Amino acid sequence: MRLLTLRTAAGTVAVRQDGDTLTEIDGFSDVGALLHEPGWAGIAEAANGATHAYDGADLAAVVPSPGKIICVGHNYRNHIKEMGREIPEYPTLFAKYQESLIGPNDDLALPQESDTVDWEAELAVVIGKKGRRISEADAADHIAGYSVLNDISMRDYQFRTVQWLQGKTWEKSTPFGPALVTKDEFTAGPLMTSAVDGEIQQQTPTGDLVFTPEFLVSYISTIITLNPGDVIATGTPGGVGHAQNPKRYLQEGQLLVTTIEGLGQLNNRVVKEA
Amino acid sequence: MRLLTLRTAAGTVAVRQDGDTLTEIDGFSDVGALLHEPGWAGIAEAANGATHAYDGADLAAVVPSPGKIICVGHNYRNHIKEMGREIPEYPTLFAKYQESLIGPNDDLALPQESDTVDWEAELAVVIGKKGRRISEADAADHIAGYSVLNDISMRDYQFRTVQWLQGKTWEKSTPFGPALVTKDEFTAGPLMTSAVDGEIQQQTPTGDLVFTPEFLVSYISTIITLNPGDVIATGTPGGVGHAQNPKRYLQEGQLLVTTIEGLGQLNNRVVKEA
Repeated sequence: MRLLTLRTAAGTVAVRQDGDTLTEIDGFSDVGALLHEPGWAGIAEAANGATHAYDGADLAAVVPSPGKIICVGHNYRNHIKEMGREIPEYPTLFAKYQESLIGPNDDLALPQESDTVDWEAELAVVIGKKGRRISEADAADHIAGYSVLNDISMRDYQFRTVQWLQGKTWEKSTPFGPALVTKDEFTAGPLMTSAVDGEIQQQTPTGDLVFTPEFLVSYISTIITLNPGDVIATGTPGGVGHAQNPKRYLQEGQLLVTTIEGLGQLNNRVVKEA
Repeated sequence: MRLLTLRTAAGTVAVRQDGDTLTEIDGFSDVGALLHEPGWAGIAEAANGATHAYDGADLAAVVPSPGKIICVGHNYRNHIKEMGREIPEYPTLFAKYQESLIGPNDDLALPQESDTVDWEAELAVVIGKKGRRISEADAADHIAGYSVLNDISMRDYQFRTVQWLQGKTWEKSTPFGPALVTKDEFTAGPLMTSAVDGEIQQQTPTGDLVFTPEFLVSYISTIITLNPGDVIATGTPGGVGHAQNPKRYLQEGQLLVTTIEGLGQLNNRVVKEA
């Protein structure tokens, strides 16, 4: 099942996608709100609200306001290598705030303050059931499904200090969507790609993760409760612009396309802020 | 004016404190909800709901669910020195999630997984008005007021990787309150103290900050919109247990008291999780 958050004249609404048709799931303003309902999967399957065409639909970030966005660094062997690091014993975790999220076809805000804006295609895990100290064996039960996220990084700000947060959470810079694909229809493995103006920059199977989604759910929930709608961005593979020679960054007017086979595609035009 | 969040049988409620009396601010479930109302100060001043005694009141974290908690590292000269670092050019920023917050008199959860749980007394800034790219001159207009926060840090997890988040956001470990003291009644300067079982560990004037509250509001809002209820924890001074010789950490049964003159006191008993 594919779940999305659609913008309408009356505000956003959670929808189910069947082929080219989006069906409103009445009573839920977005996919995050839906996931807070324990019977969300059955509700979404049974929904028969107003319908819309997928083509031309104005989509919000699939979960527009997660309680937590937990990002993982150093989680693909080829990216660890290009950044000159060792395979880690523990996952590197950092945060992103919800104001940084944008929809799958929204403009990506290039701020005046940074000219080192870089791409990081990532597989996102969305939590569907609350839990603390979840075992790795039980973790799948707490995962609602998967989506695509690009952890856009302002490299100058990221490396101003030892903590990356200030380079990772710029306003309206993180595309997320288009759909939450439920876990019965997706397993980490398929190819993930990022491309700038049609030129492939990153292309790695999502099965090459050092720390799996289930391990990450278990590890993070040891520290803090995971709640429905929380998002884990599982890290990016090799091919970021900052590690290329010469270094490459996003420029005004470019189109950034981020794809995971079976999940969908993000198409974001880079637009300089006024 | 002093604003607090009181737990009652019917749920939490925002209250105004006048001496020993707490007066309910009808219609607002906590101080964060109140701050989202543009006329919050006038509403709070005029409130005349049910009253409660301050003594024995069951207080929640003053803002129980901030949209963002932004923490600052390396912001007091004496703490920078004890950690062996240089005075920084830019503020070091990292995050904490709302599930880590506890009330001013709540038990502090000592997890089974860490035996290096350390104190970090901090002055907290609470945002009262939304803004982006706020100038330092305008920053005071966006600050609702100040409170006390202890940025409890699990040092083993903090230093497992290069990013501190996983040592900074353990469940029910961050005391925050007791009150939001509005900015007309407090300016950074007064003495901040942390004590364990009556023995003073940290004692530094809050005026010794490298980066002021106004600078931090301006710097952070360049990156991302600050919203009402957002919290900036401005960093800790020297005297943390990890920097002492020998190192000292919180032990089961100890009482951690965190005080800023003019703002109030946090009294948290350290209790090992089952």
